[in-house]
Amino acid sequence: MSSPKAWILSIGNEVVTGQIVNTNGSWLARRLFMLGFQVKRIIALPDDEEEVVDTFKDAIRRNIDVVISTGGLGPTYDDRTSEFLAKALGEELIINAEALKMIEEKYKMKGLKLTEHRIKMAKMPKSAKPLPNPVGIAPGILVSKNNTIIIALPGVPKEMQAVFDETVEEILRSKAPRTFKAEKWIHVEDIPESSLAPIIEKILKKYPKVYIKSHPKGKELEKPIIDLYILSMSVVEEEARKVAEEVCRELIEELIRSGAKVKHEN
Amino acid sequence: MSSPKAWILSIGNEVVTGQIVNTNGSWLARRLFMLGFQVKRIIALPDDEEEVVDTFKDAIRRNIDVVISTGGLGPTYDDRTSEFLAKALGEELIINAEALKMIEEKYKMKGLKLTEHRIKMAKMPKSAKPLPNPVGIAPGILVSKNNTIIIALPGVPKEMQAVFDETVEEILRSKAPRTFKAEKWIHVEDIPESSLAPIIEKILKKYPKVYIKSHPKGKELEKPIIDLYILSMSVVEEEARKVAEEVCRELIEELIRSGAKVKHEN
Repeated sequence: MSSPKAWILSIGNEVVTGQIVNTNGSWLARRLFMLGFQVKRIIALPDDEEEVVDTFKDAIRRNIDVVISTGGLGPTYDDRTSEFLAKALGEELIINAEALKMIEEKYKMKGLKLTEHRIKMAKMPKSAKPLPNPVGIAPGILVSKNNTIIIALPGVPKEMQAVFDETVEEILRSKAPRTFKAEKWIHVEDIPESSLAPIIEKILKKYPKVYIKSHPKGKELEKPIIDLYILSMSVVEEEARKVAEEVCRELIEELIRSGAKVKHEN
Repeated sequence: MSSPKAWILSIGNEVVTGQIVNTNGSWLARRLFMLGFQVKRIIALPDDEEEVVDTFKDAIRRNIDVVISTGGLGPTYDDRTSEFLAKALGEELIINAEALKMIEEKYKMKGLKLTEHRIKMAKMPKSAKPLPNPVGIAPGILVSKNNTIIIALPGVPKEMQAVFDETVEEILRSKAPRTFKAEKWIHVEDIPESSLAPIIEKILKKYPKVYIKSHPKGKELEKPIIDLYILSMSVVEEEARKVAEEVCRELIEELIRSGAKVKHEN
């Protein structure tokens, strides 16, 4: 079972106009990565029918295993993700009885009645299953088409995370292989990245399944500072850990031999 | 002249595995937005040939006016954006003489010779023009195909921003219409977003060219806190400002009439 593919869609004009940094995207990416998914794309999109419908359709056409969107589930006129999703699926947008009940109960507790804009949050593609929102109102949406599962979550980070923790994680866990990851970081100084490059390549020839990436933080010439990231994965927990440690040790030896300062390791 | 379309590509496994938040994407999105571009997508991608080549090709096929990528221009084995770009363009990857000179001069100043991995940073698609990097080594890359300009920038934020400020902004300014933007924020409390929705719709009927978006920050029922964003654009600076102020004033009046607390405005 190879790693299933995932796309993350971050829907909202505030993302593509740079008003906010897409922290929802990175939060979800980390969670999906740790669950064993390969996140192939994180796509930020405006609240725009053409862009969103096209992207959902594209994911289905490419057999992406899981698509998670955030944003556009609220009560205002530009919250249209549910409508766009119905269009992408070729399904009717209907008031989902289960979702309406969830919403109605929350407003009722505060003595508030259902209005057109509150009912709007219960409108979902016909085949959808609503996902409870433990901290807000708008439920998440779960649908599937061909081989693709699509999950639409609210855009407010606390709500998005709460829906994910409550139901989405469990759904995803059953779709991903059980893989173990061991991650290491080495902080390196006084060696330019261009001189580090052949050292990494040598190690990777010996350990072709390990992933190593250098993140330059200083200046290549004046003051080279590089954070080296090492990732080892295996279906056997012990093996993932052991290989990461071996690679780390060999890298540090080579680095010291080249005159680099290895500041710390974890 | 309508707003030209832009895509931003953030290339790097560290983005799609959620190791880092995509601040390059939002920085560029803000700059492009202020220059008069419509950013249609910010796409984070792994260091993966299939994904990156496909996305560059897709942008060209869709006649996106400007594509800006970040990441993958450095000296290590997984820095392959230039190679992927050449493939997407159907061009040879060659050592660009101008780029090589830029790189050679920087290393020479430190008494360092060119090595295979240093020369790698001068490899570009045949038609490329290198863009000087005032704070790092790897030059940016400028190419165009059909109606699409593609600019590849380094992934290190300081370098990306420096190349942008030095040459990219000037290139983009000539491609975008001169539009003026006026932005306003209103901080609203004690009214649920679902009750705010019809107020926004009423205002938008009167001012169809203005963009208003509500950003819920609190809890819809227990403690509603909403930041309202108002954007007005015009080719006439005075008009953009005037309309934003009118909309702001009318919104505040309506909000107070509905019992909301309007905490501040700027």
